[in-house]
Amino acid sequence: MLLKLLALCLFTFLIYIPIAEARIRHYKWEVKYEYKSPDCYKKLVTTINGKSPGPTILAQEGDTVIVEVTNKLLLENLAIHWHGIRQIGTPWSDGTEGVTQCPVVPGDTFKYEFKVDRAGTYLYHAHYGMQRESGLYGSIRVSVPDNFTEPFAYDYDRSIILTDWYHKSTYEQAIGLSSIPFVWVGEPQSLLIQGKGKFNCSSASLTTDTCNTTNPECSPYAITVIPGKTYRLRVASLTALSALSFQIEGHNMTVVEVDGNYVEPFVVKNLFIYSGETYSVLIKADQDPSRNYWMTTNVVSRPPNTTQGLGFLNYYPNHPRRSPPTVPPTGPIWNDAAPRLNQSLAIKAHHDFIATPPTTSDRVIVFLNTQNRINGYVHWSVNNVSFTLPHTPYLIALKKKLHHVFSQIPPPEGHDFVNYDIYNVSKNPNATTSNAIYRLGFNTTVDIILQNANTMNVNNSETHPWHLHGHDFWVLGYGEGKFDMNKDPKNYNLVNPIMKNTVPLHPYGWTALRFKADNPGAWLFHCHIEPHFYTGMGVVFEEGIDKVGKLPSSIMGCGETKGFEKP
Amino acid sequence: MLLKLLALCLFTFLIYIPIAEARIRHYKWEVKYEYKSPDCYKKLVTTINGKSPGPTILAQEGDTVIVEVTNKLLLENLAIHWHGIRQIGTPWSDGTEGVTQCPVVPGDTFKYEFKVDRAGTYLYHAHYGMQRESGLYGSIRVSVPDNFTEPFAYDYDRSIILTDWYHKSTYEQAIGLSSIPFVWVGEPQSLLIQGKGKFNCSSASLTTDTCNTTNPECSPYAITVIPGKTYRLRVASLTALSALSFQIEGHNMTVVEVDGNYVEPFVVKNLFIYSGETYSVLIKADQDPSRNYWMTTNVVSRPPNTTQGLGFLNYYPNHPRRSPPTVPPTGPIWNDAAPRLNQSLAIKAHHDFIATPPTTSDRVIVFLNTQNRINGYVHWSVNNVSFTLPHTPYLIALKKKLHHVFSQIPPPEGHDFVNYDIYNVSKNPNATTSNAIYRLGFNTTVDIILQNANTMNVNNSETHPWHLHGHDFWVLGYGEGKFDMNKDPKNYNLVNPIMKNTVPLHPYGWTALRFKADNPGAWLFHCHIEPHFYTGMGVVFEEGIDKVGKLPSSIMGCGETKGFEKP
Repeated sequence: MLLKLLALCLFTFLIYIPIAEARIRHYKWEVKYEYKSPDCYKKLVTTINGKSPGPTILAQEGDTVIVEVTNKLLLENLAIHWHGIRQIGTPWSDGTEGVTQCPVVPGDTFKYEFKVDRAGTYLYHAHYGMQRESGLYGSIRVSVPDNFTEPFAYDYDRSIILTDWYHKSTYEQAIGLSSIPFVWVGEPQSLLIQGKGKFNCSSASLTTDTCNTTNPECSPYAITVIPGKTYRLRVASLTALSALSFQIEGHNMTVVEVDGNYVEPFVVKNLFIYSGETYSVLIKADQDPSRNYWMTTNVVSRPPNTTQGLGFLNYYPNHPRRSPPTVPPTGPIWNDAAPRLNQSLAIKAHHDFIATPPTTSDRVIVFLNTQNRINGYVHWSVNNVSFTLPHTPYLIALKKKLHHVFSQIPPPEGHDFVNYDIYNVSKNPNATTSNAIYRLGFNTTVDIILQNANTMNVNNSETHPWHLHGHDFWVLGYGEGKFDMNKDPKNYNLVNPIMKNTVPLHPYGWTALRFKADNPGAWLFHCHIEPHFYTGMGVVFEEGIDKVGKLPSSIMGCGETKGFEKP
Repeated sequence: MLLKLLALCLFTFLIYIPIAEARIRHYKWEVKYEYKSPDCYKKLVTTINGKSPGPTILAQEGDTVIVEVTNKLLLENLAIHWHGIRQIGTPWSDGTEGVTQCPVVPGDTFKYEFKVDRAGTYLYHAHYGMQRESGLYGSIRVSVPDNFTEPFAYDYDRSIILTDWYHKSTYEQAIGLSSIPFVWVGEPQSLLIQGKGKFNCSSASLTTDTCNTTNPECSPYAITVIPGKTYRLRVASLTALSALSFQIEGHNMTVVEVDGNYVEPFVVKNLFIYSGETYSVLIKADQDPSRNYWMTTNVVSRPPNTTQGLGFLNYYPNHPRRSPPTVPPTGPIWNDAAPRLNQSLAIKAHHDFIATPPTTSDRVIVFLNTQNRINGYVHWSVNNVSFTLPHTPYLIALKKKLHHVFSQIPPPEGHDFVNYDIYNVSKNPNATTSNAIYRLGFNTTVDIILQNANTMNVNNSETHPWHLHGHDFWVLGYGEGKFDMNKDPKNYNLVNPIMKNTVPLHPYGWTALRFKADNPGAWLFHCHIEPHFYTGMGVVFEEGIDKVGKLPSSIMGCGETKGFEKP
């Protein structure tokens, strides 16, 4: 009887294997600088195989993705992060310079290899200094297994990435941020939809060689739709700075997926989206098919000083470059935080796909988000500590027990909460720097309270989209004002909280997260705004480092990891 | 008796030791990008401890120089070459990216350590892509031992470096050179004397924030002299492209040292100087002391399209910013090659310091200098081979016997000399790339014939200053036209040839060199013009690799040299 059962088991196993057979998706990329005019203004752009955004990675749940990246950036290194991919078992492929790997030097080829273990909408982008904003980014679309039915229907699947765009190089921007007096990057010169925008060339005294609005490189991006069909539009943001509102003229959007997780569908006229987030929305091409419609992006949460981003929803067979006959829809009022908080609150896990969170946590860490000053330099920080990276990546340092390469003094678990006035400029904005990390008990449950506050300017609190590497977290709650450790946890949503990897912290508000520290490795958790993270707004978690497999030598080459290892 | 002699010997030895005691000259440098206005135009400049040119290294013959360089260039690597220092016993400190080391990644500190075994005038500069021209360079001045008298007298010692200056970044320039259609870097925007020049801000529509001729950063460089005194002026060129003529209004210059070697003194009104060369000239402050005098640089050998470089010879106590009352002296006619060849021919070793060359050589290698095309891209090359660097530096690859990392097919020893028409554009300008190297028998004598030719433009042949790492060479002769292997060697100067490390190859001419392959290591020999070497005009010599000591792990980190080596 037992033998029969075993035989049946084996048989079933053998039958199912061909169906579930995972494929290898192999990409070879060459990354270089090229002159491009994404918003009509010509400048050096970082391209992948000649394109920015780079190629969309298409894979199916369970596949293995291999990307061999050759660095042709002349004197500049690179590292590429696979945003939303948890890298279970492959923490060295997370692509986070200084955390999981040394940067890839020019001439070298780095092989990223990881399993896409869950369908959904993800991203990839440079994760080295502020390199991302020079154009090194793209989409990852992981489809469901063959035998799986999603909780919504659509005819076609499309991806777009929204960004903001600067004319200064990352070097020029970073030098300003690290200077006394501080030189802020300012508002972006344009907003791009899938790598295309429109700068007002006449606003500056520029030659047509440098700036030309008739350049086809900067004609608005168009999504062509067939009248009557339903489209799943995967919308992602990789802005350097801006929080955006996205809208399609005359079309409602039904949100169905967020950061790779199904949500209880809800309809929006405009979608608020923060850097690092991904959304799948369904749109039906049910409007007058004789014309095209505007897609627009607008800056919110900061006083906008950038003309809106424009694209076309192109109803076939109209010409994809035919402008809609209307005025592009404007976005919502930039400084009304209520609808943004409401959208955050509206997102719940789909009732058929609820991953119930643990009811209690083993540890609560509070991160007070502030802008600070250190020796006269401006830094963003958490708990008055501005994060810096060590010269030997954490993953290697931890695994090889190189305790001297980063501070072993534990970073703070919180701040003087009782006395801190989040509504005013701190009386003493001075902070310190540290490269210390948070070491988490393996498989423990950790709560993170993100607490916003005032910046160093009166009546100013910013939106910070926080992104966690290596995990999804449950979003247990959002609130306005100061988090109350006694009251607020009682209102946590433990029934159907959405899981995400990027979440906004709203101005003067708080956001509560929970996650299981179940993925051996070293993982960054940081504000996804480039100048904020660049100047220190991030932390690193370690968990189960002893369970990490043999590190590939390809991640080494910096700090204390130079040498010749016989294969 | 023998014992007594031995005792005397020992005694003498002990007496002399304190006099000859070598010191350690320890420098700590931080290299970063900063906004500077060297020619009044504001752009990112690579600085050392906040300065470009960087600090002058002052040492005495026999000293050990230690420079700990910390890379703060954000995303960009670096490597620093000690130009003219032979690095005997320390080939890993030559600072040649791809040849002797991996690049130093941001955050890392690299320790260069070498002996300055010979008094003279040397240079240091970035040796990574075209990084040098972004401002990373400076002077090395090695004084004679205490008990040594030089063959000339002077009161004071001063150093200046002449450069040309571009407003585009090295990235922008390099992208143009590697593009189809080819985008040439063009003539420089200005000529700098010790890091200061003057761009005509009104020529472009620039704001005073970007370009301001009253900015003190770009006030002309002034050498202050005391009337009646004699100055040793160490003049060096590190131009990216330009051959220069240097003159000091109303003052003759007596050339006494060239590339660290004493020469038979000769007097010039203007000094022709090529990128990579150093000269010591004596000038006497014997003119009317009530005014200042112009120092000027002018482009020669190319149609000049850059206003001359200006500095002041400031007679104390006149104000160092007081303009001379005269019109700055113009340089010689740019396209008259005869006086340039004559200066080259005039330089002979000082009669008391002749290093007699071997009378014969073991091997003769001919390097035909051409401009070529490879798959539509423009390259400079030698013998129709355009040089490329492997991903694992040669020094490591050779020592560790990693034969697969570069081509093992020997590169050509010459070209079809009989049939090649050096006066016309090649009928077939196509070339190939290779990273193969020339392996020289240890301690053998090698002759190099540099043969110039026409570029891909009619009636055009360029000046190429060739620089050899790790050695000085004897300059046996220069000639016009095609080198005659049967006749020309008979006219070699084997009596008092000068030794140099950088030598010009004049348009349509040839230059013959001889050197002893007596320095174990891997050594670059290349045209010192940045865009020429960048696109392939160079070769590598290997000699005595088995005699090279243990390689420091600090030079590793790229290609196949990533790993963790326990100390």
